[in-house]
Amino acid sequence: MNQQTNFGDSSASATRITPGFALRPEDIALAAEQGTAKPGEDVGEYALRLGDDALILAQRLGHWISRAPELEEDVALGNIALDQLGHARSFLTYAGAAWGKTEDELAYFRRESEFRSAHLFEQPNGDFAATIARQFIVANYQFPLYRELTKSSDPMLAAIAAKAVKEVDYHLDHSTQWVLRLAGGTAESRRRMEAGLKLMWPFAGELFEDDELTARLGGAGVAPSSLKDEFDRSTGAVLAEAELDVAGHPMATGGGRHGHHSEYLGPVLAEMQVLAREFPGAGW
Amino acid sequence: MNQQTNFGDSSASATRITPGFALRPEDIALAAEQGTAKPGEDVGEYALRLGDDALILAQRLGHWISRAPELEEDVALGNIALDQLGHARSFLTYAGAAWGKTEDELAYFRRESEFRSAHLFEQPNGDFAATIARQFIVANYQFPLYRELTKSSDPMLAAIAAKAVKEVDYHLDHSTQWVLRLAGGTAESRRRMEAGLKLMWPFAGELFEDDELTARLGGAGVAPSSLKDEFDRSTGAVLAEAELDVAGHPMATGGGRHGHHSEYLGPVLAEMQVLAREFPGAGW
Repeated sequence: MNQQTNFGDSSASATRITPGFALRPEDIALAAEQGTAKPGEDVGEYALRLGDDALILAQRLGHWISRAPELEEDVALGNIALDQLGHARSFLTYAGAAWGKTEDELAYFRRESEFRSAHLFEQPNGDFAATIARQFIVANYQFPLYRELTKSSDPMLAAIAAKAVKEVDYHLDHSTQWVLRLAGGTAESRRRMEAGLKLMWPFAGELFEDDELTARLGGAGVAPSSLKDEFDRSTGAVLAEAELDVAGHPMATGGGRHGHHSEYLGPVLAEMQVLAREFPGAGW
Repeated sequence: MNQQTNFGDSSASATRITPGFALRPEDIALAAEQGTAKPGEDVGEYALRLGDDALILAQRLGHWISRAPELEEDVALGNIALDQLGHARSFLTYAGAAWGKTEDELAYFRRESEFRSAHLFEQPNGDFAATIARQFIVANYQFPLYRELTKSSDPMLAAIAAKAVKEVDYHLDHSTQWVLRLAGGTAESRRRMEAGLKLMWPFAGELFEDDELTARLGGAGVAPSSLKDEFDRSTGAVLAEAELDVAGHPMATGGGRHGHHSEYLGPVLAEMQVLAREFPGAGW
């Protein structure tokens, strides 16, 4: 690499202002091209799962810019959307290196059945409380996931996770504060928080399912089931403080990791992909 | 003020990571509350115009997160949206101090006829080239406007502008590069760039119209007409390089500064305001 890249640096945010030696998607692509960090197909498939989760969530969250109940909150959700988009770019760039594809080819030119995101991420925003419920589950899943992934035997996955985990730490705090605030606010805000959790909770189960791929990955990945206890503890503590109960909510059947999606992903992809597909490879 | 505030500092971005002594909306509200920076009604009305332009544009741009033709571009447009939202928060917070209102009250509880944004900002995104055309006009207007506003006799307007102008400098570069890239790309991208300019150019004229308010403001504001020559020169240079011609495009009648809006603002406001209005003053 003709540019010194400190993979451990995590001070770069999702914004355009990238400090020197940060881990940018361009750095990842260059490392892959030069053969210093080319993933095998299993790691590529795993990176695809992580990247697709973040990509779909980013599109869902982008909707909230100027539509949240406070301008300050617009900014917060917009920043979370851009953080997730940044993580998606890194994971998809690395995934693409396994098959000689770019992040844009993976984002804009795969079919629905080729997406590997879990169902939770494609759930509609609903009202603000439903979005917060989704964020609460996502952050309590992604935070321990990325923290454990920093120890991956794959140095690039570890580096991407090291950058992402610090941002997700903020997302975790953000969603926790909102769950408490909505639950402890008015009767109406509490009713909505309960309704949001009821909508989103069934999709938490899929996040913790192991399969052949995660078994084969061993120390390169993080076994989803290994994160479940911590998720139960961390969400449980907040829900107890908020006096919210999710015990009765059923678990939905997943399938996203193998390309089986709900009716909600198609429209998301259609919106996301239309422009790039109108100009395939045009280079403008 | 019980907190040292360096109004000249412009290193804070629109992101959540705010360096010390940055000019946050909270600082502006505090200064107004403590009487060190309370605007008169003329300055308040002027700040409303600037803030509404940025607010409406932010909502329009937020739509592009995950929908641009490149993931990198998604991030760029998302960041521009958040920058504009940050400027809107500052201007609206300061405007609100003239009438004892918060930024959220101004954003979410005014009627359409009370908004002071120019028609350009409420124009629909159209395709990507139309959005770029709008950005090109906006940035070539906002950059000299904010640069001149740093010399305002009103210290708070000058401070807000000092922070904003550095961000808009980037927006100017961004839109310039895209105009050149689309015009010099494929026949189809060039056709779209031309169509985008045809759609948006008629709304440039309103930006440079003086009225009673801007006359009364004197050195506190910037006379819109004083920016027109530079706008013509700076856009003209890029259009010449791109071999694009806007000479034949008619100018639309404006009216936004006095609350007369196109049919496009209503739906934007409806989306923006619905959530806050469902919980008026609830404090969650």
